[in-house]
This record gives sequence, structure tokens and C-alpha cells, in this order.
Amino acid sequence: MSESKDAYALAGVDIAAGNAAVAQYRTVLGRWQHPDQLDAIGGFGGLFAMPGDAARALVASTDGVGTKILIAAELQRYDGVGRDLVNHCVNDILVVNASPLFFLDYYAVGKLDPEIAAAVVSGCANACRAHGCALLGGETAEMPGLYAPGHFDLAGTIVGIVDRAAVPNPDDVEPGDAVIGLPAVGLHTNGYSLARALIPQDEWLQPFGDATYADALLAEHPSYFEAVRAIQKVASVKVMAHITGGGLLENLPRTLRPAVKAVLEQSRWQVPAIQQVLIDRGGLTHEECYRTLNMGIGYTLVVPVEDVARAVAAVPGAKTIGWIEARAGEEAQVTIHPARSSD
Amino acid sequence: MSESKDAYALAGVDIAAGNAAVAQYRTVLGRWQHPDQLDAIGGFGGLFAMPGDAARALVASTDGVGTKILIAAELQRYDGVGRDLVNHCVNDILVVNASPLFFLDYYAVGKLDPEIAAAVVSGCANACRAHGCALLGGETAEMPGLYAPGHFDLAGTIVGIVDRAAVPNPDDVEPGDAVIGLPAVGLHTNGYSLARALIPQDEWLQPFGDATYADALLAEHPSYFEAVRAIQKVASVKVMAHITGGGLLENLPRTLRPAVKAVLEQSRWQVPAIQQVLIDRGGLTHEECYRTLNMGIGYTLVVPVEDVARAVAAVPGAKTIGWIEARAGEEAQVTIHPARSSD
Repeated sequence: MSESKDAYALAGVDIAAGNAAVAQYRTVLGRWQHPDQLDAIGGFGGLFAMPGDAARALVASTDGVGTKILIAAELQRYDGVGRDLVNHCVNDILVVNASPLFFLDYYAVGKLDPEIAAAVVSGCANACRAHGCALLGGETAEMPGLYAPGHFDLAGTIVGIVDRAAVPNPDDVEPGDAVIGLPAVGLHTNGYSLARALIPQDEWLQPFGDATYADALLAEHPSYFEAVRAIQKVASVKVMAHITGGGLLENLPRTLRPAVKAVLEQSRWQVPAIQQVLIDRGGLTHEECYRTLNMGIGYTLVVPVEDVARAVAAVPGAKTIGWIEARAGEEAQVTIHPARSSD
Repeated sequence: MSESKDAYALAGVDIAAGNAAVAQYRTVLGRWQHPDQLDAIGGFGGLFAMPGDAARALVASTDGVGTKILIAAELQRYDGVGRDLVNHCVNDILVVNASPLFFLDYYAVGKLDPEIAAAVVSGCANACRAHGCALLGGETAEMPGLYAPGHFDLAGTIVGIVDRAAVPNPDDVEPGDAVIGLPAVGLHTNGYSLARALIPQDEWLQPFGDATYADALLAEHPSYFEAVRAIQKVASVKVMAHITGGGLLENLPRTLRPAVKAVLEQSRWQVPAIQQVLIDRGGLTHEECYRTLNMGIGYTLVVPVEDVARAVAAVPGAKTIGWIEARAGEEAQVTIHPARSSD
């Protein structure tokens, strides 16, 4: 466990503070809830009753790119982060089965360079268009004193729509159901504070695999929209999860009811090479691996066993990664075999 | 003009770069527009056809608090910036006559402190509740390396709804109409890079007026929602503008057609004392005053002359600040008398 604390401390990210902040927000927000605000399944996106349309809901989510932005800024590779951001947001609302309507970006810099700004926003625009989603607006803020020269931040908000009857229901999940995993192409948008701590900047342009560390680190966060819609055509999808910050250990349980657990077998899929570097260099424990990194699974879907073959055949790279089992008492809600050891 | 460039350069904000970025965005975004994206009146909020409801539209806007955040952070006064942000967003979509449905925040820090985070989000939650608007979600990002210790950024996205028939139409504005101004209480959320350059931090806690410079600088961006609705009950409001970055000179024309201009008389309203300090210390030219600062007017409404008396009586502090006149050729679309001189 001491290595665990060392690794997080090295990354400068305080998991306990994050959880404490969420607890504080619950207190703040618990004081009042709008009557049209609907229960959010797993909290990936917020649901709001569609005005004048009882059958549908609007679904919204705000997210950022995290410190992946610092690598992109240092390497002056600007167009990917916009696609990272939009795809991340699309996946978040896809968990409640929503299709995107429109997106707005927030781009903040210390010193505005119109060419760089246009490259960043172009990335957003391209990813929006790929989803038939309007880039409805945005804000470009020049804030000297807040951002260092060359640095910037990028966040975005997506709004989508869903038939309320089609919002996944965790009560449908039964022991014996399969967990399908869609492959991750890299870190996506999580684990970058750790990655920057473990892979120093002077290594970024060195060869790694078929390309460089930079290429592996900046590999784009994919959209799972088309893959999920393809699987839904041939299989009954019960619940889904977008594997972002918190990894499989924290995201999978967000759409599982207390009486079930997921048991995964890591031998069924590959851990991306760039993540193996972080695991080796950081001496990450099993818990750290699966809580900080996606470990090669970007998105999960729970389907009945009879639909498994059709589901995995529908999308290249889709795999059965484990099963739903009955959960007793306070058992962990996600177990991943084999247990990893950093020794 | 040299003083003008000096003052902007001092603030570290590059107006030309901002305009160039907007021009670049137009090129990027001009390549494709979603069929449900509607013409945005003045660009204060983006309009999107309400799915399945031809009579209504969703209206969305993203904004930040700007470098006011640095003053709040240094003074450790955290709850006001959330209200600043929500009120700013409410006013932006109010320009197209929209009422808020829901809001999402983006809060980014270098090192997460749960108490500070809760104070910031509480401010958002309180301002949302005051407008019957759901705080539907948000993102808290811990990004070591991007934000200095104690610093943070805050942005937000609001989504509202409007009857499409009630969206203001610039074609309704005629010479002889009056421009009603609602009073600003201070800088609101603009001009803070200039303010930080001209009022050094060691002065912030010194007396200013009845309080301190800090109090004047952090005075909250008010919501004009109730005031506008009160005026709309007694007057026919043709177009409106939220006076933010760019001041009266840039925001008022956003909802005026080319054939009309606004002629304002500054003797009709007061410039807030904190803005007079910036004008004096910075030696701001007329152009700089009215393009960088709100100069005491936070929101404008154009009404027919016969409705003026009822409109100004409906809201304390509302004043007739000028008139609409016919515009010839390339005349300035906003003229403010008297011309200010920094000499």
C-alpha cells in the first residue's frame, strides 16, 4: 500500500480529496433538486425532463481533457484534443443511451494565438460533425496570469436526447449476464498526471513501438457511439459504462445494483503497451492499475448470455471480458483476475 | 492611440487576436452547420430547434468568469464567483428571451481542496436555485502543472428554452425607439486583467468608498432576469443586449440591423466609482472605456417611445440612456456623448 500512495503522490492527484469534494457537493446539491431533474443512472450524464414531451429526456454532461492537454501543448499538437473532448462527452451520455444534439466548448489561454485556437476548435468541430452534433457555441477566454505561456485548458458540454423508456435500467442485470468490453486505444483522457510523472518530457519523441511515446500518449479518445449502436441492433444491452477516471473498478459499479457484481478475467484482453510502461515504472499495485488506468477497456456493455456471440461479432475488437455474478454482503462489486502484483 | 495600445498591452489582453480567432472560427464552423441549428440573434446564445416541437427552441451558452477569478482566489473569497458565472450565463440567454432550464459547471484546480470546491459550487447552486434552474451536473478537474497553487478556473454552460415567436427580431427596431439601460454594479465579469494591472494587489484591502477595493472589484455580476421580465410585462421589448466583454460599443450593435444606430448620452447614467479609478489610472481613451468596461450599464433593452415611461418605472435604476436613429452608410453603430478624453 505504501507504493500505492507513492504513485498517486507522484502524480500530484489526490483521490481522497476528489472523493471528499464529491461528498461535499452532495451536501450542497442535496438541499434542492429541480422537479424536472430525473434520476441519473450512474451519474455519467444528467437527465432533465424534456419540456412538453413526457416520453423523452435531455441528457447533459460537462467534461475536460485533463492534463493530456499539457502534453499536447508542449508538443504543439493541437487538433487531437478537441476530438478527445467531444468523443469523451459523446461516450458519457451514450451510457444513458442518449444521442448527441449539440456541444459547446470552453477554451482558455494565457495569451491567445488565433491559429492554435482555430486548430483546437477545428478538432471539436470535426468530432461534432462525425456525430451529426451541432457545435452550437463556445467561449474563448484570454486570461493572463492564470495560464502559463503556451498552456491552455479545454472543456466542453454536450446535450443529447433519449427516449425515457430506453434509458438502461440496472434492475435488468442478472447473474449470468456477460460483460462485453470495447477496446481502448491508449490512456484516452485519464492517467496523464501519472504519465507525465513517469515518462519525462525528454523521452516523448523517442521511439516507442511503431512510433513514439508522444504518439502513444496522444492517441485519441475514441467515440464508442457507432459500436454501441451496432451492438444494440443485434443484442439486448442492459447497462453500459464509460471507463474514464476511476477505471473499471469505479466506473463499472456505477450502473450495477448492489445485489450483483462483475467478475472479469484480464487474460481475455490486452493491456495497451503505453499503460504497461506506467505499470512497470510506477510499480503500480493491482488496485492502482484498475483505478487510475482503463487497462485496455474503454467502454463496457452488459448483455444476456444468449446475445454474446452476436454482440462481439458486431464490432471488431469487442470481447467478452467477464460475467455478472450474485453478490453477497459487502463483497467487492468488481473483481478482476488475475490479481496483479507490483513485486 | 498610443495610450490605447499601452492600456491594452498593460492588461495583457490582445483584442486583435480575439477578433482574429473569431474570424478563424467562422471559417472552421462555416464548413458545416447542423440543420436544427437556428440563426443566433447577436450570438449571445446558440439556438437549436426543440426536437418534436416546432414552436420552441433550446438556447445554450458557455462562459467563464475571466480573471476576476484571480482576485477571488488571492482573497480567498470563493462563493461569489459561482453566482457571477450563473448570472452571466442567465443574462446571455435572456437576450434571446430564453428562460433557464439547467446549468453545468466546470471547475479546474491544480490541487483540489474539497472545502473551496464546495464553496465555489455552492455559489453556482444558489444562483441556479434563484432562477428555478437545475444544477444538472458538472466536472471537477484536478490538473497539477496547469494551475498554480491556489489558482482555479471556473466555466459553465446554461441551457434554456424560448418560444420561437418570442425571439427578439432586429427588424422591429425603428428610428425613434428608446434604449433603456439597467445599471451595472461594478465590473461584473469584464475588465479584470486591466483592473489587476492598474490596482495592485497590495491596495485591494485598502478603503475605497464605503468598503474596500476588494469589495468593489468582487461586486457580483447581477442577474437581469427579473428586471427584464418586469419590463416585458409593461412594455414591448424589441431587442436586448448583455453588456459584457466589448462593452456598449461591441454588444449593443449585435442586435441592431445595419440601417439603425444607437446614440447614447452618458450624462443620463453614473459610471461606477471603481471604473472611474481604472479610467483615471489607465488614461483610457473614450474607445477603451466603452470597449473594455460596461461603464455602468449592464444590460440594454430597446422599446418603442410610447412604452418608455412604463418601462423605466417598472425597475428601480432603469433609465433611458439614448435613442435609435437612422444610420447612413458606414456610420458608427453606437455613438456615446460626450466624447471622453484621457488628456
